[in-house]
Amino acid sequence: MDHYTLLRNHIEAICTLTDEEWEFVRGYFHHKKLRKHQFLVQKGDPVPFEFWIIQGLIKAYALDEDGKEHILQFGMENYWVSDHYAYQNKVPATLYVDCIEDSDFFCLKLEDREYMCQQIPAMANFFRTKSNLGYIALQQRILSLLTETAEQRYSKLIKKLPRLIQRVPKKLLASYLGVTRETLSRLKG
Amino acid sequence: MDHYTLLRNHIEAICTLTDEEWEFVRGYFHHKKLRKHQFLVQKGDPVPFEFWIIQGLIKAYALDEDGKEHILQFGMENYWVSDHYAYQNKVPATLYVDCIEDSDFFCLKLEDREYMCQQIPAMANFFRTKSNLGYIALQQRILSLLTETAEQRYSKLIKKLPRLIQRVPKKLLASYLGVTRETLSRLKG
Repeated sequence: MDHYTLLRNHIEAICTLTDEEWEFVRGYFHHKKLRKHQFLVQKGDPVPFEFWIIQGLIKAYALDEDGKEHILQFGMENYWVSDHYAYQNKVPATLYVDCIEDSDFFCLKLEDREYMCQQIPAMANFFRTKSNLGYIALQQRILSLLTETAEQRYSKLIKKLPRLIQRVPKKLLASYLGVTRETLSRLKG
Repeated sequence: MDHYTLLRNHIEAICTLTDEEWEFVRGYFHHKKLRKHQFLVQKGDPVPFEFWIIQGLIKAYALDEDGKEHILQFGMENYWVSDHYAYQNKVPATLYVDCIEDSDFFCLKLEDREYMCQQIPAMANFFRTKSNLGYIALQQRILSLLTETAEQRYSKLIKKLPRLIQRVPKKLLASYLGVTRETLSRLKG
């Protein structure tokens, strides 16, 4: 299936578009292809785009003062990723987003997204719904960080995103869960 | 200023409504008044509403298996609060939301919100923007939990929400920051 059809299906899983609306919408999405280890977002740089992942796997993370990597999020097919704070506020990135696998994206500029949402109510409702779901997922992650052990977080992740677990290198998975690689091996055992 | 005027100002800080649209919108918001210690949401109960805080102060929290309280969020004037996961998915609450002060709210049903967003594009854009900002704030909180010390989290909170700090009892503030009350006293010293 071609990339634009995948995107239309993704949007229409939530909101219906007429063919005319879709022709208008698709014009704002630009294709980008990156290889493993390349960056979508780098700390200190402007963040003109958010990205919809057509195919591939990314991680969004912060580096602390000791150079330790703290993973905020993994993203795979159908996920929207960026440094959302920097993108929305037009300030330099505080995060890094890079590719764990060779990946394909659609890029969307903030101005284009806002214009599209003003012009096409269905798109405003699409982004509203996605943002709501994202908000809820982050609340669940905060609760999990506050109340659960690494073991509980790992079992939940296996249930929720089995396909992700298989693709993410163990070292990164350990970092996301906030445990050492040795502890993760024990949890998997 | 009457409650409905406050709400209209809150919405129109983001999106303009005609008088006719406002008359339609305001009909979906119902007033609720609670005293200190009363609950908006209780674990196990259905969550038919989200709440906009007209005046007051609330906390949203989870209890772990040992009965320890983990504070997800404080909310004050102009905040939208609920157990968003339960509200959106029509499942029983996993959180508690209760009042730290006597408080006034507007309640909004999910069906009413969705209908309003379908009928009035400006309202879809209003909720989309609020949800985006909420998403970004939660990402910042996760990063803070992953990378910062309690001391750093406390200084940021003072800068960001000085008015909140003054109103929230020290015991709850310590719980939110994930430190003991003694540690908090030291940070404040």
